[in-house]
This record gives sequence, C-alpha cells and structure tokens, in this order.
Amino acid sequence: MDGRIYLDHAATTPLDPRVLEAMLPCLRDAWGNPSSVYGEAREARGRFSAARRLVAELLGAAPAEIIFTSGGSESDNLAIRGIAHAARHLGNQVVTVATEHHAVLHATAGLEQEGFTVTRLPVDRCGFVDGAMLEAAVGPDTALVSVMLANNETGTVKQFPRSRGSLRQGTHKRWSTLMQFRRRIARNRRDPPRVDALSLAAHKFYGPKGVGVLYLRTGTPLEAQIVGGSQEKERRAGTENVAGSVGLATALRLAMEELPARVRHVQAIRDRILDEIPRRIAGSVITGPLEPERRLANNASFCFEASTRRCC
Amino acid sequence: MDGRIYLDHAATTPLDPRVLEAMLPCLRDAWGNPSSVYGEAREARGRFSAARRLVAELLGAAPAEIIFTSGGSESDNLAIRGIAHAARHLGNQVVTVATEHHAVLHATAGLEQEGFTVTRLPVDRCGFVDGAMLEAAVGPDTALVSVMLANNETGTVKQFPRSRGSLRQGTHKRWSTLMQFRRRIARNRRDPPRVDALSLAAHKFYGPKGVGVLYLRTGTPLEAQIVGGSQEKERRAGTENVAGSVGLATALRLAMEELPARVRHVQAIRDRILDEIPRRIAGSVITGPLEPERRLANNASFCFEASTRRCC
Repeated sequence: MDGRIYLDHAATTPLDPRVLEAMLPCLRDAWGNPSSVYGEAREARGRFSAARRLVAELLGAAPAEIIFTSGGSESDNLAIRGIAHAARHLGNQVVTVATEHHAVLHATAGLEQEGFTVTRLPVDRCGFVDGAMLEAAVGPDTALVSVMLANNETGTVKQFPRSRGSLRQGTHKRWSTLMQFRRRIARNRRDPPRVDALSLAAHKFYGPKGVGVLYLRTGTPLEAQIVGGSQEKERRAGTENVAGSVGLATALRLAMEELPARVRHVQAIRDRILDEIPRRIAGSVITGPLEPERRLANNASFCFEASTRRCC
Repeated sequence: MDGRIYLDHAATTPLDPRVLEAMLPCLRDAWGNPSSVYGEAREARGRFSAARRLVAELLGAAPAEIIFTSGGSESDNLAIRGIAHAARHLGNQVVTVATEHHAVLHATAGLEQEGFTVTRLPVDRCGFVDGAMLEAAVGPDTALVSVMLANNETGTVKQFPRSRGSLRQGTHKRWSTLMQFRRRIARNRRDPPRVDALSLAAHKFYGPKGVGVLYLRTGTPLEAQIVGGSQEKERRAGTENVAGSVGLATALRLAMEELPARVRHVQAIRDRILDEIPRRIAGSVITGPLEPERRLANNASFCFEASTRRCC
C-alpha cells in the first residue's frame, strides 16, 4: 500500500502495538475460565476484573455498570432490545432518530414488529435533531430514547436537551467516537456518564475486533439478549473474552491519556481536507456542519455532485 | 501452580501456541475491516474468507453455511431463537432435553414465554434420551428439535433416531467436544454434518475465547439475533473478528489432524481416573455411562456420596 494513506478510521483502526502487548499474557498464560473457582482461573479472573475496573474508572462508572460484549452492534442491540423489553410495563414507545447506525435502526424496527411504537425524528440538512422536537416526542408511554451523540458518517455532534430528568425512562445514546465521548462526558472523571447506557467498540479506538462494552447505569432495567451462563451478572452469557477485554481497557486508557494530542493531530488533518477537497475537486459537497464544536474532530465527509455548494 | 494438573478442559483450554502464531499477523498487520472495499481491507478479507473456507472444508460444509459468532452461547441462542422464530409459521413446538446446556435451556425457556410449547424430554440415570420417545415427541407442530450429541458434564453420548427425515423441520444438535464431533460426523469429510445446525466454541479446542461458529445447513430458515450491518449474509451483524476467526479455523484444523492421537491420550487418562477414583475415594460415584462408545473420550465425572455404587 505504498503511497496510500488510510483515512477510514471510522470503519476500523489498526491494533495499537501497546494494546497487543497487554493482550499477549492473556493469550499465552492467563487462559483460565474466569468463572471457574480454582487456581488456574484466578489469574484470568484477576486480569479480567482489572480490565472491568479500569474501564469503569475511565468512564466514571462503577464496575458493575460495565458489561463486556462482542462489539458495538451487540452493545447497541442489547441496550435497545434489553431496555425496551425490560421497561415495557412502563411504556410502549421508543424514540430514536432517522440517521442512527443500522445496529440501532434495525433493532428498533424489530421492536416495532413486536408491537412497540417507534418515533423516528428527522434531522435537518446538517444532521441535527431539534432539541424541542425531541423533548416533545417523549411522552408518558416512552420506554426508551436512543440518540447517537455524534454521527459516524457526517460527524454531526448532536444537541440534546440538557436535563436527563425531563425524560421519564432513561436515555440511551451512542457514541461513535471516543474523542467525542471524552470531550462531552468525562470532563470530571468522577462524574458518571449523563446517560443510562453507552456503547463502545474497541476496534474504533485502536483496540481489538470482536469486543465491546455496554455501560449501563445502576437501576436501568435490562433483559439479557444472549442467555445461558450467569456471566456479567446474568446480563450477557458466554465465557468471558479475557484478552479482548484487557485489550479494550488498555486501548481506552491510551485514548483517554492521549486524547488532547490525538484531537490536535486529526483536527489539523480534518481541517486541511475540508478546506482543500472542495477547492480541488469540482462537484464536491461537504456533508455535516463545519463549525468545530458541532463536528467531530476526526470527521471529514463529502458528496460528489455537479455543484460545490455546502450543505449548510 | 507447581504440582497441579489442569483437568477441566470442558470449561476451557489453553490457547495452542500454533493458533496464536496464526492469529498474530491479523493482530499486527491485517487489521482492515473485511467489509470495506479498498486495498487496506483486502488482506483482512482474504484471511477472513480463508478461515471460513477452512472451517467449511473441515466440517464438510459450504462456506455460506458457516456463520462466525462470539462463541458457543451466542451460536446456541442464534440457532434456537433464530430457527424457531423463522420457522414459527410451520409450527409452535420446540423439543429439547432436560440436561441440555444452559444456553439451550434458557433460550428455549425464552421461547416458552413468547408462546412456544417446549417439550423437555427426560433422561435415564446415565443421561440417555430414549430414541423412540424423541421420535414420538416430534409432531406436526414441531418447529425445532435441539439435542446435544454429548453431555458436557457427564460425557454421555446421546443416541438419536438415525433418520433426519423423520423430523419434519430440521434438527439442531449441539456438540460439546470436537472429538465427539469428529467421530460421529466427519468419517467422510465430504459428507456434510447430518444436522441442520451445529455450534462450536473455539476455546473448547485450544482456540481463542470470544469466537464461535454456527454451522447452518443451506435452506434452514434463520432470523438474525444481532442486527445492524449486513455481515455474515445478514445473519449476524458486527465488524468481523478476523484474528479470532483465523484462530478458530486453525484450532479446528489442528484438532482434526491430531484427533486420533488426542483421543488416545485423553482416553488413557480418562480410563485411569475412572478406575482409580472410585477405588481410592470412598463415597465417589461415577456419573454417566462407562461403555467406551457411550462416553466421551475426554470425560470423567463423579459425585461424592456415602456410597460407591455406580449410577448405571
């Protein structure tokens, strides 16, 4: 791939060699089953528990609020179906947005087939949801509100009603990038996230593929989607992916530690791309907003048409 | 752990160093997203496709019949809920056995809550299902039959009605060990498995944790359980776990190649344990059958009571 520059980190990122180093002892030596009771399992359980504590600390959460999954799609599905099913006695309506990730759109479409009412809010031409419209859509029958904080394709950072209390039954928001996550949520690391559920996929921030996290605020109802053993406090069955979870935790730690430098780096690249592509390529249209605070630091996206006008 | 011998390979196995070697290039270099279309994704896609073809060849299946999942529990859940939901118009009854794995028992209990009728067949004191009882339980409303071929706790190898044709809508059987799988199914490697669905968890045969396979015979109806992207022919959403899938395929190849030697090795250990424990430990009772053809080569299990009589 000489001379090529990979720019599709929203699709996936390389595995950070430091993350691989952290995973190797789990792959080589700490191979026990964390749910077993004897000595051989103890080292695996210790590393797995430490990964959970580290993720919790980095998110400003409690360890019991961290559920390890196989990735972002499973986390999204678990949050949406799991909360909606468990909260069904409280209401039959789910509120979401037309531009969500397919893991959210298809999961809510499934709820619709089960008899839920799904309200899909429209967005403006830059991808924004109207906050007043969102608040108005939430009513006494709302079981769940699921809105991504930032769009993974257009980079649009969503604007929300500030008060979670105005939504009767929890909000599930999905972060498409860690940078966004940190800027918005973790200013005070001791503050828990201001949502009830949050999905992370390790391979989006230099971690391994096949592992994710669902943060679930204490007290949020959840029905398990993969059932069997009692792993993850009966919220997600299956032998624990120790190496993957350690990899996710390490990648998250590095992302948090290096966030200011990473943001500076990608933002400069983003701005140059957003500046030069429309000037150099006739018919290119920037999608999403241009204002720095309203667009992900790592996102530049375009449509290519006959006209070069901006979408907003 | 000096002086200790790990004997709980039914819970999990160490990662074979040769499997780790096969995974490392995916973790270090082939980190692209297999579903992307550009060059950087090509190497990842190539390795991932090769893993699928290898698993298919080893199982005597077609590549399109192999679905990669996050492990055995997800595979079991996907098969049971996925087939039952998709075949619901054909019938409302699910047949299974009281001694199945929790991933099967809890999934069928969930179907019961949705309105399915679940028939749970009893076993005799050595864990066997009566073949005639199984055939009698299957009727015009049967959507799915799910029976494990061998029990993971007692080692009991189940006896089945030979003819799959006698079951109207497919059979899902779950293998708890690869040895059993090979002995029963893969005598002729070109013969596809004589079931409609089959679950594998890599970490049970010296592969990595967090990855599994569902074999699904062509023509078997299936409703996806994790929804979102169109990976795995829309049967299982989520960015593909390339390294894990390559690890599973490599571990499966090694298991198949080394099967006769592995069986000889563990069978000798098993027989010595089954012989000596009852003689040395007062009050120990062997659970499951003793006849070599009716017990897994790698299984020795006991209860410890006041009496030393055999259960059968």
